[in-house]
Amino acid sequence: MKTNPGRFFEDYRLGETIRHATPRTVTEGDAALYTALYGPRFAVQSSDAFARAIGYPGKPLDDLLVFHVVFGKTVPDISLNALANLGYAEGRFLKPVKAGQTLSTVSEVIGLKESSNRQTGVVYVRSTGSDESGETVLSYCRWVLVRKRDHGATIAEEHVPSFAKAVDPADLASALPRLDAGAYDTDLAGSPHRFADYAKGERIDHVDGTTVEEAEHQLATRLYQNTAKVHFDALATRETKFGKRLIYGGHVISIARALSFNGLANAFALAGINAGRHVAPLFAGDTVYAWSEVLDTATVPGRDDVGLLRLRTVAAKNRSCAGFPDREGEGYDPSVILDLDYWAFIPR
Amino acid sequence: MKTNPGRFFEDYRLGETIRHATPRTVTEGDAALYTALYGPRFAVQSSDAFARAIGYPGKPLDDLLVFHVVFGKTVPDISLNALANLGYAEGRFLKPVKAGQTLSTVSEVIGLKESSNRQTGVVYVRSTGSDESGETVLSYCRWVLVRKRDHGATIAEEHVPSFAKAVDPADLASALPRLDAGAYDTDLAGSPHRFADYAKGERIDHVDGTTVEEAEHQLATRLYQNTAKVHFDALATRETKFGKRLIYGGHVISIARALSFNGLANAFALAGINAGRHVAPLFAGDTVYAWSEVLDTATVPGRDDVGLLRLRTVAAKNRSCAGFPDREGEGYDPSVILDLDYWAFIPR
Amino acid sequence: MKTNPGRFFEDYRLGETIRHATPRTVTEGDAALYTALYGPRFAVQSSDAFARAIGYPGKPLDDLLVFHVVFGKTVPDISLNALANLGYAEGRFLKPVKAGQTLSTVSEVIGLKESSNRQTGVVYVRSTGSDESGETVLSYCRWVLVRKRDHGATIAEEHVPSFAKAVDPADLASALPRLDAGAYDTDLAGSPHRFADYAKGERIDHVDGTTVEEAEHQLATRLYQNTAKVHFDALATRETKFGKRLIYGGHVISIARALSFNGLANAFALAGINAGRHVAPLFAGDTVYAWSEVLDTATVPGRDDVGLLRLRTVAAKNRSCAGFPDREGEGYDPSVILDLDYWAFIPR
Repeated sequence: MKTNPGRFFEDYRLGETIRHATPRTVTEGDAALYTALYGPRFAVQSSDAFARAIGYPGKPLDDLLVFHVVFGKTVPDISLNALANLGYAEGRFLKPVKAGQTLSTVSEVIGLKESSNRQTGVVYVRSTGSDESGETVLSYCRWVLVRKRDHGATIAEEHVPSFAKAVDPADLASALPRLDAGAYDTDLAGSPHRFADYAKGERIDHVDGTTVEEAEHQLATRLYQNTAKVHFDALATRETKFGKRLIYGGHVISIARALSFNGLANAFALAGINAGRHVAPLFAGDTVYAWSEVLDTATVPGRDDVGLLRLRTVAAKNRSCAGFPDREGEGYDPSVILDLDYWAFIPR
Repeated sequence: MKTNPGRFFEDYRLGETIRHATPRTVTEGDAALYTALYGPRFAVQSSDAFARAIGYPGKPLDDLLVFHVVFGKTVPDISLNALANLGYAEGRFLKPVKAGQTLSTVSEVIGLKESSNRQTGVVYVRSTGSDESGETVLSYCRWVLVRKRDHGATIAEEHVPSFAKAVDPADLASALPRLDAGAYDTDLAGSPHRFADYAKGERIDHVDGTTVEEAEHQLATRLYQNTAKVHFDALATRETKFGKRLIYGGHVISIARALSFNGLANAFALAGINAGRHVAPLFAGDTVYAWSEVLDTATVPGRDDVGLLRLRTVAAKNRSCAGFPDREGEGYDPSVILDLDYWAFIPR
Repeated sequence: MKTNPGRFFEDYRLGETIRHATPRTVTEGDAALYTALYGPRFAVQSSDAFARAIGYPGKPLDDLLVFHVVFGKTVPDISLNALANLGYAEGRFLKPVKAGQTLSTVSEVIGLKESSNRQTGVVYVRSTGSDESGETVLSYCRWVLVRKRDHGATIAEEHVPSFAKAVDPADLASALPRLDAGAYDTDLAGSPHRFADYAKGERIDHVDGTTVEEAEHQLATRLYQNTAKVHFDALATRETKFGKRLIYGGHVISIARALSFNGLANAFALAGINAGRHVAPLFAGDTVYAWSEVLDTATVPGRDDVGLLRLRTVAAKNRSCAGFPDREGEGYDPSVILDLDYWAFIPR
């Protein structure tokens, strides 16, 4: 059989390493498309002149563009037969990526847990994205619910990994060159608010909303070479629970991050992903809003140029976030689609 | 408050200068997207080889891409609370922009006029786009109708500026390197018609039409980092007069300009904008057509390589321009959406 | 008349050469858009690092991006008044194209045959795409059914050319640098199957499907500066046989090629087009599937690094290709939209 049927739960072995296809040189073309798809306005990623003024060799690519490209490669091997993308943890952005660099991804199977009904199981992987010199640019864990091919198949070894509740700020220092924070021009950046202006517990409604079109999420998901067919095939998805194409969860993350500029304009670089959950699906025609809470603030050992905000960004669909839709009892307000807990750098 | 509420009419002061966020490096990626969004076919902007043959260092970016990027930055400070974009004047394209350059925008408030109902006022600005070396690439005036926050607020100083009916051709010479007009290959450019072939009063129906999709104008408007929410939020715009997303007026200008290639293929560079008006709104699903009239022709002092055509390009929706839909009495034919008066360079 | 009315059948002369507008520098921006539009995952075109490891100076542009750009230029001169794009033959990809190169196209009229009703005629052209140094990168023949302006007009000279059933593999060697096939990493490429793993007669269902949106095909077709109005004007096409916009046939070819990765991941470069036919039209909202048959395999004289697969890729709409929809009697299964016979290189 020449086509890739994808792996089923019983095909994974604890500790095995999977080298994913396709290595990908990320270019200014990808960066422009990323801007067209989400409209991010962070000055560092938008302007070579701004980035150089504070100490970068030139504007870095958006961290989430890097994330999506690294993630996309894992889909044919990890989630082609997945029923759900259950969560993220221990994500670390370790090195800025520039246009022209080539990214590839390797995943290690760090956990396997069969479901009690023996029809599915949870696969836990740690995926590592590297540049062409072999240096790690991003590492993160995710776990997905995967179908079994043969319900009777037995699993050699099971293990449920435990994850840190939050990435230690001390592990995030390498992601950023040392900055000249005095040269960081807040007029050009779009907001006067620096590290010290944010306080734990503060909540920000990002106000703006954006309605998503089929063409947009399809362009994005193909750009990331993510092949999950639920995003592209309107005919086949008619037979699914939702009856239509499902939007790639990462598309929602990028929309929420771009919306968060309005309130977090200087939190310009992602440092780590502590936890993430796609609470409900998004479909074309829906309008996305977002709000954020400052869960914590932290200084970075040995650095007085930047601080870290631990943010929780919640995205909702078809409902303004003025009322901060959130968890409710065991679940969530029905409008909530994303709950993402992450660290972001912000100049001091 | 961390989010940007936008300025209201009483927040502006005559003579003040506003430095806008976000500086933006414009790349080959943006140029490719611009081609995909509008399909322009002007040889100078399409081909490094063609551009070099006539004296450019390489292909310049499309003038309107530059315009939209420079314009987009002004939106959060000038038109977030605007009710209408009333007009343009005194636009001058002063320096060609290449991929890799970084654009930023500063606006000066040159006029303020409260409306007689005291609920709104007109803000006049001169916006100046500069490259990373600080040289001006584009300057233009526009005026917008802006809401007041407090209807009782008083305005310190009012002034209504007067604008030249047309930019003086003598002020436009710097926008273009000296060209080797003999090396300008009209076969490759797509039309044999040079400066001398156009006459004042001539009208051209550009024939072709293009239907606009939501995904297209949203991609374009985000590419320009234009944040006006009426272009993106289908849910919030349900409550507006039109009940749906409104397309950025600059999108219409770019469509009309690209359509105008069919008849004006050698009028390859914009030199100045004399006057412009968005006569009626455009919505997704509408089909745009355009026609042009040669209002005037002019030589450029000291240059025998190029001449200038003063053109009036009119765009209409859902009606072919074979009948040249135009002003009618006090208003316009109901199909008309754009009336733009500008200077364009054309080889002699 | 300043606008291009297109040529009619009686305007062509056997043997004449037409230099087409607009020369076009193809960039990383175009390559990124191509990825976003179709999602191809061939490692050689995706990764500079991968391409260099096997002997390319860097990643080449996708062969079909080159094809569409070369083809697009011919539309204003060849097919503006065409009723149908009848076929392709003798296509040869002769030189890899990198980002930054400038493509132009010349066509020679190699055949003319008036229809028996004297209202139309078939125009046969050989179109040649060259880079900025004048070297041919692509050559192919196509024939189109073109309207006559004046049904009474007489044709000076008629001729029906004959085409080779398939391009001779010996004529295709120049398209590829000599590769280090041992350095071709099949893990990164996404499939272990090399030349020897494919056998004549083998059929592969490419499994995946993709639903096409209006915005997508319009963006693609404009990117190629293809001006055929049937692709863009929803209002004018209401009066046509189909009542709606028709998708550029080349868009279908690119979709089918990208889908074919799943089964043909190492057949990374197109070498020649033997025959091609757009069997039925595609419209927005349709879902495209594809399957391929290995018609033949061939070695390339003097080269032990690569072999050639002669493939026939069939695309269908709104029907999975699990059942291999194909020719039926005189015609085709009603789902079939494309029947393309081509040579592709694959490492040995």
